[in-house]
Amino acid sequence: MLKHERIEWIEHNMKECPINHTFKLVGKKFTMLIIRNMMHLGHKRFNQFLEIEDINAKILSARLKEMEEDGLIERKIYPDKPIRIEYTITEKGNALAPILDQMSAFSMTYCAKDIFKDGRARKPEEVYGSEYTKKGP
Amino acid sequence: MLKHERIEWIEHNMKECPINHTFKLVGKKFTMLIIRNMMHLGHKRFNQFLEIEDINAKILSARLKEMEEDGLIERKIYPDKPIRIEYTITEKGNALAPILDQMSAFSMTYCAKDIFKDGRARKPEEVYGSEYTKKGP
Repeated sequence: MLKHERIEWIEHNMKECPINHTFKLVGKKFTMLIIRNMMHLGHKRFNQFLEIEDINAKILSARLKEMEEDGLIERKIYPDKPIRIEYTITEKGNALAPILDQMSAFSMTYCAKDIFKDGRARKPEEVYGSEYTKKGP
Repeated sequence: MLKHERIEWIEHNMKECPINHTFKLVGKKFTMLIIRNMMHLGHKRFNQFLEIEDINAKILSARLKEMEEDGLIERKIYPDKPIRIEYTITEKGNALAPILDQMSAFSMTYCAKDIFKDGRARKPEEVYGSEYTKKGP
């Protein structure tokens, strides 16, 4: 637990709780899964993101727009025929990787029965391979 | 990006995406802030959690019930007069700390203008003191 004087310092020097602020950026349903698909599957196109669990085109469209406004992703239009639109992750968006990694690690350890077919808890390195630990924060 | 054969392994051995699973546990508004107040402020009582930004009694009550069912917190009744009810965090709930820490670090670096009155980006250690890094995962 933080000491009282630390809390005082924090309250006087901050405009907003950083945990709450991050939650407002990425706490909406699907935002983290869009980031996940960009990072882990290399998805770039609208139709690829439609593969996300339970998403629909209307919600996806709204999320991509918000994420672009928040500087997490960039939308690029290529003047091919037909026109090609691709979404890429920004440096700020990439900085969400450690949050995703910790979310992944949490369920693999504490909800192993829900995650793995054999129900055995694992560390992310065991699942994703040793390259996983190298890309850390 | 993960190699294709890795994705195959993951798909065949997992019942659910661990990031999505964690999001379902903690992605509802206020769940992370209740955990934050328990960890950082030592809050235990219903009335203390009512201090959380924009929460109300009905929503708080629903969240605490879900969090108890999900094994993140425990509800204890003490037979004092008047009866005292306290919520404590479980080992599983405590394992959310690295996610909160990374959420905090993200905003402090990438949204410094929204977080700090002077707008200067900081690392969590600088804000919370050196004891912060010791409690890590």
